[in-house]
Amino acid sequence: SIVDAVLGVLHHRNDLSGETVLITAGGTREALDPVRFLGNRSSGKMGYALAEAAERRGARVILVSAPTALRPPANVEIVPVITTEEMRGEVINRVDQASIVIKAAAVADYRPIRQSGQKMKRQGPLTLDLEPTADILSEVVARRHPGQLIVGFAAETENAVAHGRDKLLRKGADAIVLNDVSREGIGFDSDRNAVTFLTAQTSLDLPEMTKRDLADRILEEILGLRRPQHVVSETGTMFE
Amino acid sequence: SIVDAVLGVLHHRNDLSGETVLITAGGTREALDPVRFLGNRSSGKMGYALAEAAERRGARVILVSAPTALRPPANVEIVPVITTEEMRGEVINRVDQASIVIKAAAVADYRPIRQSGQKMKRQGPLTLDLEPTADILSEVVARRHPGQLIVGFAAETENAVAHGRDKLLRKGADAIVLNDVSREGIGFDSDRNAVTFLTAQTSLDLPEMTKRDLADRILEEILGLRRPQHVVSETGTMFE
Repeated sequence: SIVDAVLGVLHHRNDLSGETVLITAGGTREALDPVRFLGNRSSGKMGYALAEAAERRGARVILVSAPTALRPPANVEIVPVITTEEMRGEVINRVDQASIVIKAAAVADYRPIRQSGQKMKRQGPLTLDLEPTADILSEVVARRHPGQLIVGFAAETENAVAHGRDKLLRKGADAIVLNDVSREGIGFDSDRNAVTFLTAQTSLDLPEMTKRDLADRILEEILGLRRPQHVVSETGTMFE
Repeated sequence: SIVDAVLGVLHHRNDLSGETVLITAGGTREALDPVRFLGNRSSGKMGYALAEAAERRGARVILVSAPTALRPPANVEIVPVITTEEMRGEVINRVDQASIVIKAAAVADYRPIRQSGQKMKRQGPLTLDLEPTADILSEVVARRHPGQLIVGFAAETENAVAHGRDKLLRKGADAIVLNDVSREGIGFDSDRNAVTFLTAQTSLDLPEMTKRDLADRILEEILGLRRPQHVVSETGTMFE
């Protein structure tokens, strides 16, 4: 409603005005042949909700999107990609413009070493040799400019907080948004989710809510990283 | 428009009234772990267009659907599945009710021999052992009852007609709808397509048009299989 929209604008006070937020979303795909691919279950909904929320709060938003079934949010610069390598290239090309980077995409961590140019025929057992894809988050951290905030996502199924913090420290991101994908009924494909917002020092459980509401809560936590109680990271810069 | 709808009804004359049409659609997925899967590029649009068209022409429609981003057509019995094995089970459970079976789904022909219960961590190279999935079309043909029409789909990238006819004869289907997926701009994800309708004796090119129009053309060709100039198949029955 109009009242909600007005309250929303008042509430958020355009607090991302002047920021450029680069968001990745969706699940990348690695082709085995012209028909088959290795993919993952990301619907892209969380990344698209973040893009919409950041735009509403006044940011310029660049959305580097792997395939999804979603309609792109209005007033967002959308950059479509398929593979992890394409996503890497488009992110690296644009990351210097961004004051905030949010890597919500689920990248295919592996790709076939060999692709078949023709459709493979079903026959007996088949062995597929896979190699790791580029680690985009680590590359973004390596190029970080002063004041740039870098937030990753992690989907974990066991010891989620321990694995999430390990990823945070290993990659040097400012925060990791942790999805425990072993929980039923939220997360993949759902319009709702619950996550843990992890920094090197803190762990904040954000309870189940709509992905759109969660997007606003995550953006608030990201902006909170600029407040002095946080040490952003060894290679980052503290503000205020 | 209303005029189009009325003309459509008049034109099609409820020619599928009394038929039960079982249609498979979408692309099945085989999990590697809780996050990753082996999938294929089917959008499900062709199968859903066939379901909608068959329902409009008066058929009872059962749509066994692998994951898609599509809204199910109205008045269609939808049976959601994920894996090829689930699709096989749901098809075999219902196929005796069907007078026409159209296998428009793109099944994952291979699945990992082992699944990981936990998300695999990205590390060095990885070898994935795959095994062929069930051949649903052959099983449906083996259970065929007199008068039942069985139509498969084939996505080919080279020697499309030769490979398609080979599939038709090997599997014993009445017809194969052949997608040459190496053609750009139509087919996967597109709202348009062009196909070849292959029987043991005939090959009919249906030129590029919307998938909805193509669905009607394919249904007309399938009904045409019951006319006496066609020998339906060795195990099928000729009508009229």
